Amino acid sequence: MTDAATNMRLKLPLICIILEVILIILFGTLVQYNYETDARLWHEHKTNHSDYDNDFYYRYPSFQDVHVMIFIGFGFLMTFLQRYGFSSVGFNFLIAAFALQWATLMQGFFHGMHHGKIHIGVESMINADFCTGSVLISFGAVLGKTSPVQLLVMALFEVTLFAVNEFILLSALGARDAGGSMTIHTFGAYFGLVVARVLYRPNLDKSKHRNSSVYHSDLFAMIGTIYLWMFWPSFNSAITAHGDDQHRTAMNTYYSLAACTLSTYALSALTAHDGKLDMVHIQNAALAGGVAAGTAGEMMLTPFGSMIVGFLAGIISVLGFKYLSPILEEKLKIQDTCGVHNLHGMPGILGAIVGAVTAALATRDVYGDGLEDVFPDVAKGEIEASFQGVRQAISLAVTLGIALLGGLIVGKYTPDPRDVFDKWEERFCRAIKESKMTINNIYTKLES
Amino acid sequence: MTDAATNMRLKLPLICIILEVILIILFGTLVQYNYETDARLWHEHKTNHSDYDNDFYYRYPSFQDVHVMIFIGFGFLMTFLQRYGFSSVGFNFLIAAFALQWATLMQGFFHGMHHGKIHIGVESMINADFCTGSVLISFGAVLGKTSPVQLLVMALFEVTLFAVNEFILLSALGARDAGGSMTIHTFGAYFGLVVARVLYRPNLDKSKHRNSSVYHSDLFAMIGTIYLWMFWPSFNSAITAHGDDQHRTAMNTYYSLAACTLSTYALSALTAHDGKLDMVHIQNAALAGGVAAGTAGEMMLTPFGSMIVGFLAGIISVLGFKYLSPILEEKLKIQDTCGVHNLHGMPGILGAIVGAVTAALATRDVYGDGLEDVFPDVAKGEIEASFQGVRQAISLAVTLGIALLGGLIVGKYTPDPRDVFDKWEERFCRAIKESKMTINNIYTKLES
Amino acid sequence: MTDAATNMRLKLPLICIILEVILIILFGTLVQYNYETDARLWHEHKTNHSDYDNDFYYRYPSFQDVHVMIFIGFGFLMTFLQRYGFSSVGFNFLIAAFALQWATLMQGFFHGMHHGKIHIGVESMINADFCTGSVLISFGAVLGKTSPVQLLVMALFEVTLFAVNEFILLSALGARDAGGSMTIHTFGAYFGLVVARVLYRPNLDKSKHRNSSVYHSDLFAMIGTIYLWMFWPSFNSAITAHGDDQHRTAMNTYYSLAACTLSTYALSALTAHDGKLDMVHIQNAALAGGVAAGTAGEMMLTPFGSMIVGFLAGIISVLGFKYLSPILEEKLKIQDTCGVHNLHGMPGILGAIVGAVTAALATRDVYGDGLEDVFPDVAKGEIEASFQGVRQAISLAVTLGIALLGGLIVGKYTPDPRDVFDKWEERFCRAIKESKMTINNIYTKLES
Repeated sequence: MTDAATNMRLKLPLICIILEVILIILFGTLVQYNYETDARLWHEHKTNHSDYDNDFYYRYPSFQDVHVMIFIGFGFLMTFLQRYGFSSVGFNFLIAAFALQWATLMQGFFHGMHHGKIHIGVESMINADFCTGSVLISFGAVLGKTSPVQLLVMALFEVTLFAVNEFILLSALGARDAGGSMTIHTFGAYFGLVVARVLYRPNLDKSKHRNSSVYHSDLFAMIGTIYLWMFWPSFNSAITAHGDDQHRTAMNTYYSLAACTLSTYALSALTAHDGKLDMVHIQNAALAGGVAAGTAGEMMLTPFGSMIVGFLAGIISVLGFKYLSPILEEKLKIQDTCGVHNLHGMPGILGAIVGAVTAALATRDVYGDGLEDVFPDVAKGEIEASFQGVRQAISLAVTLGIALLGGLIVGKYTPDPRDVFDKWEERFCRAIKESKMTINNIYTKLES
Repeated sequence: MTDAATNMRLKLPLICIILEVILIILFGTLVQYNYETDARLWHEHKTNHSDYDNDFYYRYPSFQDVHVMIFIGFGFLMTFLQRYGFSSVGFNFLIAAFALQWATLMQGFFHGMHHGKIHIGVESMINADFCTGSVLISFGAVLGKTSPVQLLVMALFEVTLFAVNEFILLSALGARDAGGSMTIHTFGAYFGLVVARVLYRPNLDKSKHRNSSVYHSDLFAMIGTIYLWMFWPSFNSAITAHGDDQHRTAMNTYYSLAACTLSTYALSALTAHDGKLDMVHIQNAALAGGVAAGTAGEMMLTPFGSMIVGFLAGIISVLGFKYLSPILEEKLKIQDTCGVHNLHGMPGILGAIVGAVTAALATRDVYGDGLEDVFPDVAKGEIEASFQGVRQAISLAVTLGIALLGGLIVGKYTPDPRDVFDKWEERFCRAIKESKMTINNIYTKLES
Repeated sequence: MTDAATNMRLKLPLICIILEVILIILFGTLVQYNYETDARLWHEHKTNHSDYDNDFYYRYPSFQDVHVMIFIGFGFLMTFLQRYGFSSVGFNFLIAAFALQWATLMQGFFHGMHHGKIHIGVESMINADFCTGSVLISFGAVLGKTSPVQLLVMALFEVTLFAVNEFILLSALGARDAGGSMTIHTFGAYFGLVVARVLYRPNLDKSKHRNSSVYHSDLFAMIGTIYLWMFWPSFNSAITAHGDDQHRTAMNTYYSLAACTLSTYALSALTAHDGKLDMVHIQNAALAGGVAAGTAGEMMLTPFGSMIVGFLAGIISVLGFKYLSPILEEKLKIQDTCGVHNLHGMPGILGAIVGAVTAALATRDVYGDGLEDVFPDVAKGEIEASFQGVRQAISLAVTLGIALLGGLIVGKYTPDPRDVFDKWEERFCRAIKESKMTINNIYTKLES
């Protein structure tokens, strides 16, 4: 048994058990059912509502679609790297299962506290899955460079920063970002890219053949892609207001993705020197339309506007894969393993800008009384629509700042998890050795 | 770089960009949110309805199931041909993304115009996916014989004819076809078969080993099959009336498929000379029960009737694969790559006949006030149930006529898309050359 | 053509056709639409309800998730055995399609009869899928030891016993088991294990390499695992009461599974001698949290309690794979091909115990008026909560008794299906021979 194997043998179990025990204790002390999941509370209000008013029926189908995107979508999308087929699916599973529990606590802490307790239900489950998605985007940037232990530590800090950033954007700044162009995609991508920069391994170039994809890997990856593509309308609409808002958001996203697919195929064939479609472009860039419709999807963007946004997102994304990624790797030493900058980074920024512009152009003529749902502060007359646009723009800047700084700190200045765990492990091994000696002593005494 | 590669390099991008730009312009001028997706309109009617009345909550889960059938179901079903694994998934994706946008316009033009505008929402999204399904059925018949450019041109015309046929059936003739036995399956299959006949390539026989399936291809194809099988109840019930109609349609389809699966296994083992099950039968014929329940599924067919229909559909489909497909290829020179005649063609006709008979037998005793939902003209006393049966039968004949004639014209008399694009390309290359010369001239002048 | 092939050629078709014809006749005489699927009945009550009150909208999304678990989840989970890739998916499909029809009849017979008729709708469809799940669990224990004909015969008897056991538990004993820790998982696992014991083949040891998994098999199996994992919240909540009950059950299961995943990874790495994660553990044990939350999921278990349950389930399951399965095989001669004892058996018993304890601790303080939904007899004051706990414990004992005894009888004392069918086949062949002779005689007479 090598040293690395010994490490793995104890470190991963230790961190998993410690984290889960902490989670269970915190859930026991802090978390409660909200009034829609609590038997007593729900039935107390029973005279005022029917069972249908339970948010479960409004959001659970969307939740399940989001859940599929997180576990099948992200998990299989990354299998296109034959070398990391297992790592991507298996580690994706582990990190996601941890992150969604931790996110429940962190997000609840920032915007779900009631008398010192976190109240949870289907909406908090969706938000936890969203936060997990952001962590998985970062994972895509560092795939192949990190151990599962490091990934869990990264998830621990990233989820925390995600909740801070989300709080600043949605609560402090009053920005709108239902589908998370900023909070999920921009944040996850730039956070991951900085971590990837810190973990730069020059030797990875030499083992580049490991990054090559093969026939079956590509078909597995297409499963991931197509699930993400199909369910993105549910993702963007999962936590928008009931009624026309969910309906409109899903439809805007649907058309954005369709337009994006055509521009992706066009640009992929155009930029290839032999006219062949590049599977990596199709697996990734065709999804950029969903990312770019994340902020403005709930607004009156119109299918027309959505298609323009999707069309541009596809173009930007393919060009990024073709021309920008090699520059990032050579000049900035950022090895973006899965190209998250092209799928989540740039399209996320595009989505944020589109959101800011669409918000600034909002009028009561167009939204009617629906203005209350989308821009409550504008509807109340507290601010002008143009100022809502400014809020959105500031939110993008804040997100970029926190992601870049956070990634830098988590990647660099945090003590290497190995050191921490080596100490733990040393103590653990010593404890085992001592207890064995004690037992031996007892046996010796008993025998004598 | 060969000529073919050059062609591919420019043709595919050109057609994708041209089509998408046309789509965007048409959406900009013609398409509007309907009252359930428009913020102002929905909130204007807010006093009369609650958020739950928004059609989104009745239909969006079904829409997502249909979406999975179109992109995962059809896409992966065709991967059983090892040779065409990528083409089937990748081209399926491209064609579907185009077809659903074009279908929104064509179907809106024929039955969604309000004051010169097309109003869209979740129901139009389902209908667009349905129309896309029809195009993908035709794609199954010509898989391996066409370039993506030809497929896009085929989709352009097929979607248009689909909308015409659908308009004639549902609006002009007053037929019922919620699950599309006629409009989707029969139309798509016979249209595709005629195109396949026109594109007959005798050499395809010699490369028949390319059509052979291998272990992993078959497992991928089973993913496609099982998704289609599981979600077919959602497909047939997606646009039926709210309440008992959606409920009943889903249940009828569920039992039809279950019965079909048993007859498929029975017939597959019975017709094999060594008793082994043929994976191609199982991957396809087990689905025929869904196709055959497409028209009558919303009617009071009873689970008993549904199971008889499914049982027969499985038998017909396996026998078709075993005995009819070789005849079609040898005598009629129709190389039906994926066997769409056996899965969609014959079971579609069976479904149309079952629909006509079930309609003719409808009585107020059985349907009560629910007659209004299923056969409005009969409920109003305008026609007899038996005449509704005649309408259904005429609709089948019309569908076959338009599909066969349309396929012939699109396949044969349309100018070969290659010619059209070669001219475009020539101009395009000349334009590039000229602009390069101009730039060179400018540089030369500047330098001198 | 070998004898075995001949047998297969006739036996499988014969049993499929006979069973399906019997099913169709029984459906024709016994089964009717319930009032939510019947056009007349639904519209008669139309004044008292809106379309939304139709149970379809409360349960159909959950039904589809359960459907995916049965056909994709169970089907692909078992593909991890490279040797049995096709068998697992293909036979899974056949058995499930049969079992869900037979279960509709058996379950309807025991708790859905109205004036001699079985009334069906979406809830009976979910129950039929649940019963099918139990059969597929047993299938996992005997995978590779049985022909499809034997599997169909096993399904025939197991479904019947399942319905008897379910009737005793839910109707006679008044136990609660919405997610089926007892009725589905414990029953299916122990039934299958006894059948596996009876079918013990010592030679299977020698061909153990056939049980080894390979790269792509493992990725296919992960598709099965992750679908089961994602949709387990829908499984456990599919038939609980509307409103807070469905909502709470889904959430409890979600957190149980998340905690289970972390303990599974921890234990898998800890028990491996080289620290590597064992894919079989991850593919199976990570799901034990769903099984263990099957009974108590609908109760006020709290997320905290759910996480403890899931955490323990993961530990028990991995330890079972590592230490108990080899003992079962060596000492008890039970070759549990897919390890169903570790995924469904022990976690099912854990779930039953957790359910009994949680029921015994129920108070009106905690449940309020919601007590009526979860423990109606306690709410009415007919019994104490502690007695409900006793009922739950007795139910576990009954389930184990019926499963073990039933498995023994079905496995051993039932005449070997081969004998039965050999006689049938003999007669069939003789009949064919005689009819051929008759035809020959006629021809001879005609020619002469």
